[in-house]
Amino acid sequence: MFLREYWYVAALSTELESRPVTRQILGEHVALFKTESGEIVALADSCPHRGYPLSLGTVVGEQLVCGYHGFTFDCAGTCVAVPGQDHIPSRANVRSYPVHQQGKWVWIWMGHGEADYAKLPSTPWLVDTENWSSVVGVARIEAPFRLLVDNLLDLSHETYLHNGSIGTPEVATTPIEVEVDEASHVVRVYRHMKAVECPPFYARTTGLVGQIDRWQDIEYFAPGFYLLNARIAAVDDPPHADGSDDHAFHMKILYGLTPSHDGRVYDFWALARDFCVGDAEVDVFLEKMQTAVVQEDVDALNVLQARSENVPEVTEVSIKIDRGGLAARRVLASMGEPRPSK
Amino acid sequence: MFLREYWYVAALSTELESRPVTRQILGEHVALFKTESGEIVALADSCPHRGYPLSLGTVVGEQLVCGYHGFTFDCAGTCVAVPGQDHIPSRANVRSYPVHQQGKWVWIWMGHGEADYAKLPSTPWLVDTENWSSVVGVARIEAPFRLLVDNLLDLSHETYLHNGSIGTPEVATTPIEVEVDEASHVVRVYRHMKAVECPPFYARTTGLVGQIDRWQDIEYFAPGFYLLNARIAAVDDPPHADGSDDHAFHMKILYGLTPSHDGRVYDFWALARDFCVGDAEVDVFLEKMQTAVVQEDVDALNVLQARSENVPEVTEVSIKIDRGGLAARRVLASMGEPRPSK
Amino acid sequence: MFLREYWYVAALSTELESRPVTRQILGEHVALFKTESGEIVALADSCPHRGYPLSLGTVVGEQLVCGYHGFTFDCAGTCVAVPGQDHIPSRANVRSYPVHQQGKWVWIWMGHGEADYAKLPSTPWLVDTENWSSVVGVARIEAPFRLLVDNLLDLSHETYLHNGSIGTPEVATTPIEVEVDEASHVVRVYRHMKAVECPPFYARTTGLVGQIDRWQDIEYFAPGFYLLNARIAAVDDPPHADGSDDHAFHMKILYGLTPSHDGRVYDFWALARDFCVGDAEVDVFLEKMQTAVVQEDVDALNVLQARSENVPEVTEVSIKIDRGGLAARRVLASMGEPRPSK
Repeated sequence: MFLREYWYVAALSTELESRPVTRQILGEHVALFKTESGEIVALADSCPHRGYPLSLGTVVGEQLVCGYHGFTFDCAGTCVAVPGQDHIPSRANVRSYPVHQQGKWVWIWMGHGEADYAKLPSTPWLVDTENWSSVVGVARIEAPFRLLVDNLLDLSHETYLHNGSIGTPEVATTPIEVEVDEASHVVRVYRHMKAVECPPFYARTTGLVGQIDRWQDIEYFAPGFYLLNARIAAVDDPPHADGSDDHAFHMKILYGLTPSHDGRVYDFWALARDFCVGDAEVDVFLEKMQTAVVQEDVDALNVLQARSENVPEVTEVSIKIDRGGLAARRVLASMGEPRPSK
Repeated sequence: MFLREYWYVAALSTELESRPVTRQILGEHVALFKTESGEIVALADSCPHRGYPLSLGTVVGEQLVCGYHGFTFDCAGTCVAVPGQDHIPSRANVRSYPVHQQGKWVWIWMGHGEADYAKLPSTPWLVDTENWSSVVGVARIEAPFRLLVDNLLDLSHETYLHNGSIGTPEVATTPIEVEVDEASHVVRVYRHMKAVECPPFYARTTGLVGQIDRWQDIEYFAPGFYLLNARIAAVDDPPHADGSDDHAFHMKILYGLTPSHDGRVYDFWALARDFCVGDAEVDVFLEKMQTAVVQEDVDALNVLQARSENVPEVTEVSIKIDRGGLAARRVLASMGEPRPSK
Repeated sequence: MFLREYWYVAALSTELESRPVTRQILGEHVALFKTESGEIVALADSCPHRGYPLSLGTVVGEQLVCGYHGFTFDCAGTCVAVPGQDHIPSRANVRSYPVHQQGKWVWIWMGHGEADYAKLPSTPWLVDTENWSSVVGVARIEAPFRLLVDNLLDLSHETYLHNGSIGTPEVATTPIEVEVDEASHVVRVYRHMKAVECPPFYARTTGLVGQIDRWQDIEYFAPGFYLLNARIAAVDDPPHADGSDDHAFHMKILYGLTPSHDGRVYDFWALARDFCVGDAEVDVFLEKMQTAVVQEDVDALNVLQARSENVPEVTEVSIKIDRGGLAARRVLASMGEPRPSK
């Protein structure tokens, strides 16, 4: 019931500094940890002995020791010790998942076959710390993956759900353009707002006053990665003909959409900017602002899901601003994602 | 599964002063709000766009704006604006429910047809503020409607559940008389206690000391309205032959029994008195006292319901004091209310 | 679905000093209370009138009065009063359960027939306060009975789950011996550790320093009683040939395993010692220490159970240390306990 042969964001790199972390991803319980030498490892989070979560165990050197009876595993998931005897049953190994760290995010391959690194999304803005500063976070939403896709593909909700931070009237009223690359499973939504009010989110960080041009160019790489290319500039000051655009402010707003199980999704986020690079005060401001924005989304989707469980059927009336979200649904359906009737 | 063609209490008038209120009534989610001009409106609490609760939206003038993507509705439930386009889909309207304010309570008509104002219960004591002072409140009970009917129709429980406030030994021991008006769906239960102890609830407000005559005359207008006519007077000092009764203290104890969904009910209450009219201190005392009494009922019914979910079948042994409750059950059954076997 | 014809621990004696206690045992709700004369009584915890829990009622003399409408019961469960009338319906009696106090624990017979006192476990250490001091407690676990059996029969988990208090490396590595008395439904597990580190639990109370001999001799009397005979002594200083063993420290660690319903179990515990008898400071230390140990078990079993509800099937890889637990499962199965497939 999930699209398995893809990479998903599994953890923030900082989460793995101390103790193991447990995540349920595509329905599977995964224990993530970092060994003493710094290797990041993901094992099935269930001890073969009595089913205790390995994530409650202890990292000792390059191994993970179960916290209930001490079964011990190496980074490949091979059981290397059991208590009270030298013989180790051959059935005592656990699945190891391919993982890949890209700066502040750790990705996991949930497929049954070999990890396909050609499918790994590129996130240079979380790696190139010289030209980009970033803040990251994660929230868990008690709603299915598809509600988060709907949310992110239709940014007109910023005007209403996030007014006071990133939402202004023009986000809802500006027409969008939608492009679909069906072969690559990419949906692009363009919204170019001209001579509009600068929202607090950008006003404080860019120092721009009065009206601006504000572009929101979405690239959704189905199923698990969403990139919002934000461009903020003076009015009528587009990129140069050669593509250079140093006179504008750019923010890359990344989301890792990781289905947890049928009714839950992890909402990983990252904000990378090419201005105020290295400014810790701006980091703090943006992290606080974005945490509040994400919480507004979390609250809304939790409410939507709780409500949908109590009603027989939700009918939908779609309009033009929904073309991005509807395109994303079609792409997901073409990839085999089953969409429940409600 | 509910008796729909009736009026139910939906809200306290004071609840609608600021933001919209959500209520689930007879299984249906309803958004209640007051417009800037003061009109009270009830709309289906689900936006036709993506199902977001309209009760989380914002009242702007005479309209309600959805908090997710801005679909906007007038008091009749007609969609008058959607973001990003002028054309409004005809399917974008929502149901509007007839509502009627009577003093401190707001009633809603949940029927499918025209609102039948002849069925609207009369509550003059919440309107005539010259001769009556009242306090009101509401509690939500995690138990079905029928358990609240049982509770209110058998006041012998006052002696045990509410001792220390309104319960004295004689409430349980005094025989009752029961009358049923099957055509009008009214059950009347009379309990006239003679020369009994005055409970703290009345002693502090009436100033009566020593023994009193205390009458409890219930009128249950099935399904949603319950009126307890309480009369407190000196011993052997009944109403005059012409019906006048100025030498007694009267309290009208009103309950609005509003089924929320299968296992929940709203317990609206009001206490109106014809003594100490306008005395704010007595208001505070009675509101605090009644809030505690209602909470004792809420706790008891929540426990009863939680317990009943864990046992295969509850058998009942009924006695004479149950005649009022059993009559109410029969009336409800005659109206078509399905009673679960347990 | 439970083994009914046995005694189970129902309460700590101290729990019954003031108000009635409710317990769900083998799926049945039981009200336990002590009368004014000191008799301990267990009645079905549901009033025949409207199903209200009798445990919420009031003890008056030798009777229990229902807190909703005042139905009143004697110690045999016979209804002796109802409100408003003299005639008492014959169907208004409730079941009374045989109970038996042994020092700090109260046992209950859950069988349908006569109580079989020959089956009552013997716990002299909770009664003989001259030679033994004890501390007791109870925890409720959101996991089935069988997970607690697994936990207690395999003490190798002390090394990992309880390290820092009672766990040392040798508990996991020392081989065990297992004996099964199938006729009496007793499983015995012996673990004799020689010249090992004294864990904090015993070091502070016995005053022993350096290495010790530490014996853990389990006797599990299926289904509901578990006795761990702990012996702590200097190295190579076994009991004398005549069985006398005054030069060692003994602790009796008792568990009452009382199934609550399908997915819950009560974990009654008692620690009795034949050293530092009457030392209140040692009482406080041991009670605090054991409460923490039990909480570690509670947390682990709650996690195991929550996890098992989300996965289709748990496979198990058993090793030599599991022989005690596997023997207990076989004994329980021979007694008719149904074990769910997962």
